[in-house]
Amino acid sequence: MTHLDREIASQPAVLERLLASQSRAVADVARRLRAASPRGLLLVARGSSDNAALYAKYLLGVRNRMVVALAAPSMFTRYRRPPDLSGYAVLAISQSGASEDLCAVTRQARRQGAYSVALVNQAGPLERESDDVIRLCAGPERSVAATKSYTAELAALAMLSLALDGTAAERRELSRIPQMAARVLSASAGLDAAAARYRYAQRLSVIGRGYNYATAFEIALKLKELAYLTADPYSSADFRHGPIAMVERDFPVLLVMPAGRVFADTFGLARELRRRGAELVVISNERRALRLARVPVILPERVPEWLSPILTVLPGQLLARHLAAARGCPLDAPRGLSKVTRTR
Amino acid sequence: MTHLDREIASQPAVLERLLASQSRAVADVARRLRAASPRGLLLVARGSSDNAALYAKYLLGVRNRMVVALAAPSMFTRYRRPPDLSGYAVLAISQSGASEDLCAVTRQARRQGAYSVALVNQAGPLERESDDVIRLCAGPERSVAATKSYTAELAALAMLSLALDGTAAERRELSRIPQMAARVLSASAGLDAAAARYRYAQRLSVIGRGYNYATAFEIALKLKELAYLTADPYSSADFRHGPIAMVERDFPVLLVMPAGRVFADTFGLARELRRRGAELVVISNERRALRLARVPVILPERVPEWLSPILTVLPGQLLARHLAAARGCPLDAPRGLSKVTRTR
Repeated sequence: MTHLDREIASQPAVLERLLASQSRAVADVARRLRAASPRGLLLVARGSSDNAALYAKYLLGVRNRMVVALAAPSMFTRYRRPPDLSGYAVLAISQSGASEDLCAVTRQARRQGAYSVALVNQAGPLERESDDVIRLCAGPERSVAATKSYTAELAALAMLSLALDGTAAERRELSRIPQMAARVLSASAGLDAAAARYRYAQRLSVIGRGYNYATAFEIALKLKELAYLTADPYSSADFRHGPIAMVERDFPVLLVMPAGRVFADTFGLARELRRRGAELVVISNERRALRLARVPVILPERVPEWLSPILTVLPGQLLARHLAAARGCPLDAPRGLSKVTRTR
Repeated sequence: MTHLDREIASQPAVLERLLASQSRAVADVARRLRAASPRGLLLVARGSSDNAALYAKYLLGVRNRMVVALAAPSMFTRYRRPPDLSGYAVLAISQSGASEDLCAVTRQARRQGAYSVALVNQAGPLERESDDVIRLCAGPERSVAATKSYTAELAALAMLSLALDGTAAERRELSRIPQMAARVLSASAGLDAAAARYRYAQRLSVIGRGYNYATAFEIALKLKELAYLTADPYSSADFRHGPIAMVERDFPVLLVMPAGRVFADTFGLARELRRRGAELVVISNERRALRLARVPVILPERVPEWLSPILTVLPGQLLARHLAAARGCPLDAPRGLSKVTRTR
């Protein structure tokens, strides 16, 4: 069994542990954030964690009405002209807790008096540069492709959003996520066979909107790094603004479309893509969406949309894993990658 | 001659006209922005204009030290939970000036008392919803793929950045851009033959960093909408965080790497890609970068980095145009697209 398989399978347990152990740390951060009443929130991250930051943008925007900006690290490291961060709060997200460019952004934030938080899996320099820390408690992640640290990041962000402003009903929804994750993983066992269908595909588009815009990016990244497929991620709205021209008969498109506020948009696009003869993989809990798919991936019925990204990414991870295996790609150490990427 | 060819060729004249006619409007906006002293700047755009917004994020961040957030329109339209925009300024960028989701964001901004500006080519609803307007003066754009409106958007943003805070030397640099654009277009005539080389390519990665992160996105979009190629855009740093695993012998990568602060990063990546046997198209004014390329595209020597995106995108437009022709794709009306995309 590979590290990747073990780490994918461990996600329900990781989520359970995170929810049980970090509520005090999260509550402290929420209290300090409320006290700081920041002008805005600057997020900084790379790779999968940057996709978690995309989720945070929607989550903290829609639920907590905060304006969230994603930092461009090169402003801090290469141009050495950081923006004016006085009155802002900075949240750095990193599995390794060691990325140099994230440290540079956090260090600059403190220099300018901005409150900073590190959301990390491993202790390290990033944590030392920050005012507060939230730990993912995911245990060492040995596979180069991040899986359990990504879903833990999403769950930690959901905890933070709730600690800032949440109802008892929403807290119950979050507490049910670990067991739902276990159900999604076992329901996705059949993706092994489906993956063979895309054995020779070179490209594929991945579509999600709103909360699941992040999921489209994360599934595309897994398909690229594990299965070496050129997978490009879009919102359904952005896809209509140009990239849809690529789609010809049998062009594969993976749609992440759980029930919720943006379902109608993505469903409209899915129908149009079917009319054009595209080949659809659909991750959904809406029957009419699943009916459009060549490969339907069924989600539990009562997934609340705001938490759905923690679940919808799971079949994407499995699809990338199985496709990588079908193509003979090494699962734990994709070519040319290492666990900590040195970028500045 | 197609509309696309005419519009690509018209860019030096459009830039000239824009610089000559909009300095007063831009100065007014700069004055009002300074007076508002916003908490942050929220940009909203779709398609090519969204890529211009990426340029604005670096330009206004590095030159003017502003924190720039890109709006997610679905928060306003689908979730109906807009973020708290009090004290923010909003800049909407649109060729058509008619996009419904941009109007929704601007309307909400005004309702919350935020100062709003529309950067548009055509008069229309967006302008009516905004406090101020800057016009692109690009004339009607008839080809579905945006070209002249994109470079005009970048130039208008450069004017705004300068009006907020700029030196006489920088103003001279901007004034030379139209004639440099004419030189780049004539130097890129040879891309006609080069395009044939990628006749059967299905995928390609496009890389740029810092100011030219936007260029990577815009060239990738042109390649998708005109030539139906799956082109995926990255910063050199993000590419190392996973997607580089896709690269095998002969994998085509287009690198946008003019001289400047981020050149060393992109150059390091280009060398690594060559070692892996990738096929490189390089847009640069640095000889050592051009030497790595199978298809070198030479830029004028003295392009200042902050303005380079207005020029570096031009060979990308031509490459997409020639590749589309080589593949028999319709140049003015790519399949499935229309000039105004109705998204909410």
